[in-house]
Amino acid sequence: MSHYAEQATMLGKDVKIPQHPDEAILDAVPNPQAGTLFLARFACPEFTSLCPVTGQPDFGHLVIDYAPNQTLVESKSLKLFLGSFRNHGAFHEDCTVGIGKRIVEAVKPLWLRIGGYWYPRGGIPIDVFWQTGPVPEGLWLPDQGVPAYRGR
Amino acid sequence: MSHYAEQATMLGKDVKIPQHPDEAILDAVPNPQAGTLFLARFACPEFTSLCPVTGQPDFGHLVIDYAPNQTLVESKSLKLFLGSFRNHGAFHEDCTVGIGKRIVEAVKPLWLRIGGYWYPRGGIPIDVFWQTGPVPEGLWLPDQGVPAYRGR
Amino acid sequence: MSHYAEQATMLGKDVKIPQHPDEAILDAVPNPQAGTLFLARFACPEFTSLCPVTGQPDFGHLVIDYAPNQTLVESKSLKLFLGSFRNHGAFHEDCTVGIGKRIVEAVKPLWLRIGGYWYPRGGIPIDVFWQTGPVPEGLWLPDQGVPAYRGR
Amino acid sequence: MSHYAEQATMLGKDVKIPQHPDEAILDAVPNPQAGTLFLARFACPEFTSLCPVTGQPDFGHLVIDYAPNQTLVESKSLKLFLGSFRNHGAFHEDCTVGIGKRIVEAVKPLWLRIGGYWYPRGGIPIDVFWQTGPVPEGLWLPDQGVPAYRGR
Amino acid sequence: MSHYAEQATMLGKDVKIPQHPDEAILDAVPNPQAGTLFLARFACPEFTSLCPVTGQPDFGHLVIDYAPNQTLVESKSLKLFLGSFRNHGAFHEDCTVGIGKRIVEAVKPLWLRIGGYWYPRGGIPIDVFWQTGPVPEGLWLPDQGVPAYRGR
Amino acid sequence: MSHYAEQATMLGKDVKIPQHPDEAILDAVPNPQAGTLFLARFACPEFTSLCPVTGQPDFGHLVIDYAPNQTLVESKSLKLFLGSFRNHGAFHEDCTVGIGKRIVEAVKPLWLRIGGYWYPRGGIPIDVFWQTGPVPEGLWLPDQGVPAYRGR
Amino acid sequence: MSHYAEQATMLGKDVKIPQHPDEAILDAVPNPQAGTLFLARFACPEFTSLCPVTGQPDFGHLVIDYAPNQTLVESKSLKLFLGSFRNHGAFHEDCTVGIGKRIVEAVKPLWLRIGGYWYPRGGIPIDVFWQTGPVPEGLWLPDQGVPAYRGR
Amino acid sequence: MSHYAEQATMLGKDVKIPQHPDEAILDAVPNPQAGTLFLARFACPEFTSLCPVTGQPDFGHLVIDYAPNQTLVESKSLKLFLGSFRNHGAFHEDCTVGIGKRIVEAVKPLWLRIGGYWYPRGGIPIDVFWQTGPVPEGLWLPDQGVPAYRGR
Amino acid sequence: MSHYAEQATMLGKDVKIPQHPDEAILDAVPNPQAGTLFLARFACPEFTSLCPVTGQPDFGHLVIDYAPNQTLVESKSLKLFLGSFRNHGAFHEDCTVGIGKRIVEAVKPLWLRIGGYWYPRGGIPIDVFWQTGPVPEGLWLPDQGVPAYRGR
Amino acid sequence: MSHYAEQATMLGKDVKIPQHPDEAILDAVPNPQAGTLFLARFACPEFTSLCPVTGQPDFGHLVIDYAPNQTLVESKSLKLFLGSFRNHGAFHEDCTVGIGKRIVEAVKPLWLRIGGYWYPRGGIPIDVFWQTGPVPEGLWLPDQGVPAYRGR
Ligand SMILES: [Ca+2]
Ligand SMILES: [Ca+2]
Ligand SMILES: [Ca+2]
Ligand SMILES: [Ca+2]
Ligand SMILES: [Ca+2]
Ligand SMILES: [Ca+2]
Ligand SMILES: [Ca+2]
Ligand SMILES: [Ca+2]
Ligand SMILES: [Ca+2]
Ligand SMILES: [Ca+2]
Ligand SMILES: [Ca+2]
Ligand SMILES: [Ca+2]
Ligand SMILES: [Ca+2]
Ligand SMILES: [Ca+2]
Ligand SMILES: [Ca+2]
Ligand SMILES: [Ca+2]
Repeated sequence: MSHYAEQATMLGKDVKIPQHPDEAILDAVPNPQAGTLFLARFACPEFTSLCPVTGQPDFGHLVIDYAPNQTLVESKSLKLFLGSFRNHGAFHEDCTVGIGKRIVEAVKPLWLRIGGYWYPRGGIPIDVFWQTGPVPEGLWLPDQGVPAYRGR
Repeated sequence: MSHYAEQATMLGKDVKIPQHPDEAILDAVPNPQAGTLFLARFACPEFTSLCPVTGQPDFGHLVIDYAPNQTLVESKSLKLFLGSFRNHGAFHEDCTVGIGKRIVEAVKPLWLRIGGYWYPRGGIPIDVFWQTGPVPEGLWLPDQGVPAYRGR
Repeated sequence: MSHYAEQATMLGKDVKIPQHPDEAILDAVPNPQAGTLFLARFACPEFTSLCPVTGQPDFGHLVIDYAPNQTLVESKSLKLFLGSFRNHGAFHEDCTVGIGKRIVEAVKPLWLRIGGYWYPRGGIPIDVFWQTGPVPEGLWLPDQGVPAYRGR
Repeated sequence: MSHYAEQATMLGKDVKIPQHPDEAILDAVPNPQAGTLFLARFACPEFTSLCPVTGQPDFGHLVIDYAPNQTLVESKSLKLFLGSFRNHGAFHEDCTVGIGKRIVEAVKPLWLRIGGYWYPRGGIPIDVFWQTGPVPEGLWLPDQGVPAYRGR
Repeated sequence: MSHYAEQATMLGKDVKIPQHPDEAILDAVPNPQAGTLFLARFACPEFTSLCPVTGQPDFGHLVIDYAPNQTLVESKSLKLFLGSFRNHGAFHEDCTVGIGKRIVEAVKPLWLRIGGYWYPRGGIPIDVFWQTGPVPEGLWLPDQGVPAYRGR
Repeated sequence: MSHYAEQATMLGKDVKIPQHPDEAILDAVPNPQAGTLFLARFACPEFTSLCPVTGQPDFGHLVIDYAPNQTLVESKSLKLFLGSFRNHGAFHEDCTVGIGKRIVEAVKPLWLRIGGYWYPRGGIPIDVFWQTGPVPEGLWLPDQGVPAYRGR
Repeated sequence: MSHYAEQATMLGKDVKIPQHPDEAILDAVPNPQAGTLFLARFACPEFTSLCPVTGQPDFGHLVIDYAPNQTLVESKSLKLFLGSFRNHGAFHEDCTVGIGKRIVEAVKPLWLRIGGYWYPRGGIPIDVFWQTGPVPEGLWLPDQGVPAYRGR
Repeated sequence: MSHYAEQATMLGKDVKIPQHPDEAILDAVPNPQAGTLFLARFACPEFTSLCPVTGQPDFGHLVIDYAPNQTLVESKSLKLFLGSFRNHGAFHEDCTVGIGKRIVEAVKPLWLRIGGYWYPRGGIPIDVFWQTGPVPEGLWLPDQGVPAYRGR
Repeated sequence: MSHYAEQATMLGKDVKIPQHPDEAILDAVPNPQAGTLFLARFACPEFTSLCPVTGQPDFGHLVIDYAPNQTLVESKSLKLFLGSFRNHGAFHEDCTVGIGKRIVEAVKPLWLRIGGYWYPRGGIPIDVFWQTGPVPEGLWLPDQGVPAYRGR
Repeated sequence: MSHYAEQATMLGKDVKIPQHPDEAILDAVPNPQAGTLFLARFACPEFTSLCPVTGQPDFGHLVIDYAPNQTLVESKSLKLFLGSFRNHGAFHEDCTVGIGKRIVEAVKPLWLRIGGYWYPRGGIPIDVFWQTGPVPEGLWLPDQGVPAYRGR
């Protein structure tokens, strides 16, 4: 276990939430376990964006799984990136897949998947599931385990 | 994330529930992530139809999973389509598979499955599970996770 | 345990669902344990009515607790009464309390309460709780135990 | 802790299930803690009887709480007594309260209550709650904790 | 969705529970979705039979999954068939597999499995799992999801 | 059940989310059950505001219970009022109690309480519980039942 | 927080399990918060004894709540005391209350209660609840929260 | 379903618990479904043995799955065999696998697996999972579903 | 909602964890809702200290409820105070009550209670419950809802 | 079951927690079931370390699965090794994988995996999943079953 603390540029500092996803910067930090195939999962139960048609707030619970290659997602920059959707309009299907693609671009993982579990509108919630391709052989990939929506 | 809001013809407007499934129109909207293999799930815990033999109300919880091709299911039209069964007689097995086939016809997905979890009549509930064919390779497909019926 | 089977006029027969709550008849049958203070509970997870403003379907889970006096609620007539709301417009608060009052009128219980647990519309479900007055002393009255709504 | 084993007349022996509740004998055994106010609870998740109108089987989960006086309910005789309803017709409300009264007669407790949690027929299960009177002061009486019926 | 209601011979009528499994008739009705590979599941939480050695009642929760071919199981006849074990002696392993084989004989499905989840006797419950052969390729087959026994 | 639909000024129309709580209007509609003591509960699992010190987003789950007097809370205006906190700074304790007081002012209920269940910051979530005074005698007031925070 | 470590005579040492409850010694240690009314709870999910009639093992989950006076129960001696029932015959009702009385004798608390939640024998588990008297005013006493037995 | 009751040598009789696993006899009874590939599961939540180093009691929950060949495990002899560990020292890993091997020896199944879920000692519980070899093709083998240990 | 942000001295800054509870400073900030009777709850699932006898780590889940008077607990200082127990020896009963008393001293609430739910050592976890006195009339005080310990 | 107790060097003795992971010694004891392919699982819900950037405490729940070869992990030494992270800085991804590698080095298992389920910081918890390579054929490997993080 080693001395790579200096690479985390935002950890331990206060940074403003970007006003638009395009302004947000997703930081990559060196992966101290590069060369080892493993999975990292982020659970983000506090996601919110706006409905692009009505302007009403939407809420979702996102779970992101990825197999890092040379870099890790810096978690504070991830938080700010997700926060940048707060006043931004986005459809559920597009938004979920789009967030996954942004992370892929930033950390160039061996593999990634994202699950978007959205709050109901009109009684029928949408869940969206995307992965970059077949699961790498030998990767351990537990179920995301988010409970099914039941209404009441 | 882009300007495709105009394609959602019913979102944000009040539309009457059709009186019969044949009158309902399932809308397809362009898939902004066409070319990307992903899954969309709708959970519909508020489904109701009539028993074709006794005329009594039946209740069910439906979950629909599909891998979109060129179009997405427009969710408000899905809601109205499902609402059109309200005063319509339908057996559980036929109804569940039939709804799946109607959606296939409307959005021509790469793949689809539907689970129908029906409320008990006479102590023994029926669940119905249908998919259009083998799961596309590389598609991420979580369990639907609806709890088993226990009686009490 | 005795011979009061003949009083249940609808049990074991097929009867049509009334088209309006005013047409429905709530049957009372003699209480074989009259003079004993006890509680009967009905759980009705399959209730549906229409929104009086938009005409869209509403769904609810109702739980009815009452302390019978001289008569019991005949359960098949209760089912038909509840079914009569299927194509009827009713606000949640009014509907829940109104159903409670109709049952009071029909069986004149020592005491009654009704809980209405409605499915969300716009992300915020309403629950409605009404009782006829203070709980009779010595009556055992367990919590209704319907889980809180959590969204996702 | 003492020598009262000989009073349990049925424990450790095979005894036939009585054909009718009237034939069943509920045994009382001396209470080794007589003079101490405490509560004993029996959970009986395997109760079955017949519907007196249609002859169809009914199922219920019964929970019995009592504060023993001079005697305890002998548990094997309780099991046989409950088994005697297997081919016997009984309405839910009457049956639940009636079982409670039979136990009162047999062991003359300081206080008793019984909860009957019945499986649904026609979508609406009935629960029945009866107690002999106000809870004795100083008695510890936990909730019975049987989960509410949710349909699916 | 069509006019096959007339084939359900018992639905909506009162029929007596047969006294022995050999007397029970399992009805098959035409499968309106014949030619489509799907799964139907019956959950039967109210099963009871007798222990063939001691004559004591046994209780079980059965779940039946099958892929229909030309016919469906008529659900009321299934209920009566299961009810016919009420006063019949049967070991758990034999009974579970035997019920599965009777249904196979009646509806000649493409494939079937049955899970028997028995209540504990002597602290150790038995579960029994049988299927007719390898799962048909392309059939969607969710876990039965009956919770493990924990004692307390 | 009657003709009071016209009083709901916002139901069924699209209205913009106000930019500040002070701009939001909480609508009151006539209570069709005025004179009857009952409880209405709103569950709001999608609340979000900003931390007044760091500007970071906060998330909370609010539950509001009130006993209406002459008016009911109009639920769409409640949704817009809660949405107005989206870009507004507010401490958890103050915000929760403050929302309760605004609703009191708007509908002048017989009694009200509000529970605020906040997402953790720094590992320690805060819950806030306020009521206007002692619970009115004879009012039925179930527990809000929001699960305790466990971390992992 | 202070120097009372020396009073715990068994903590951190290996001690043999006594062969009989009468041989077990329940240690009391000084209560560093004497004069303050509070509750201590022990959950003991690993209790086992023998059935005094058949000699078969019995299993139970015990929960002990007490309000200490001058002394606390030393927890390792409690464990050994409970372990001494391992090869000892005891009826459920007597055993539960008897354990409570032994602890009262040892630490002379202001108040005590014990709940015994026993594993099922013959399908019907017994729970036993005893307390020394009315709950002291001002004592906070949460429910023991052990789930109800459901069979399967 | 047939006349094989006479083969169960211990069912319905009282037999002493053996003092050592070596003294216990595991009975095999003819498998009435021999030739059919199925699975039988025993859940044993009441297992206890002694720690071979400290002599302290250990507790475990065992689940045994096997595919019978010509014989079944006689369940009462299994109970006595498991009971024989009560005063016997055994390490968790060795004990779990050893019990599996004893059953293999007794009933020579087509295949077997055993899961041992042990209570925590020092805060870290051990689970042990063993199977005799690859799962037979076509055997239905549900997850054992014992919940993960969480501490509190 | 107002301008009291400047009073939170530690929020948004990095502060070191104190080495001993005596070095930790619990900050009080003005209560913007002073004069209003309400409850604030902190859930602290990440508490750890050392066993004063063996030096081994102990873990606990603490829940603190209080009715603020003129001041609120500043939550970051609470976190640091709780963190100061990390390398400090403390018995469960004493530690739980002691933490409660320190908070009382710091913010002089109208009323306070603390629940300490400790991880098991030797199979028997201890829970500790303390409150400063009778619950203030009119204060709403939900159950803390921490699940009971079950072992496995 | 045999005489290998002498190999457990730390079991039943008090040993100090090492101050640094490098000082901790992970003991291997002979595997009495060497030559048999099985899985052992350790659940460690009480892990804590420090954040290497801010020095604040981190908490995690670790689950370790391995298939032993010639040796087993000695569980007390595992506990001490994990305890040595108490005052040591470590990033979540690195720490989880690093602990797995240390155990591999110590007991040279046929295969190992480790899941790290961390408490949230800033609302987004990280889970880390690593295994040494593809799962050995014929090894039974149940899901770790740790629930997904939900926030509130
Ligand atoms: Ca959420
Ligand atoms: Ca539902
Ligand atoms: Ca039913
Ligand atoms: Ca909704
Ligand atoms: Ca049951
Ligand atoms: Ca039903
Ligand atoms: Ca059942
Ligand atoms: Ca049993
Ligand atoms: Ca929420
Ligand atoms: Ca946090
Ligand atoms: Ca237990
Ligand atoms: Ca257990
Ligand atoms: Ca432990
Ligand atoms: Ca915890
Ligand atoms: Ca322990
Ligand atoms: Ca934990």
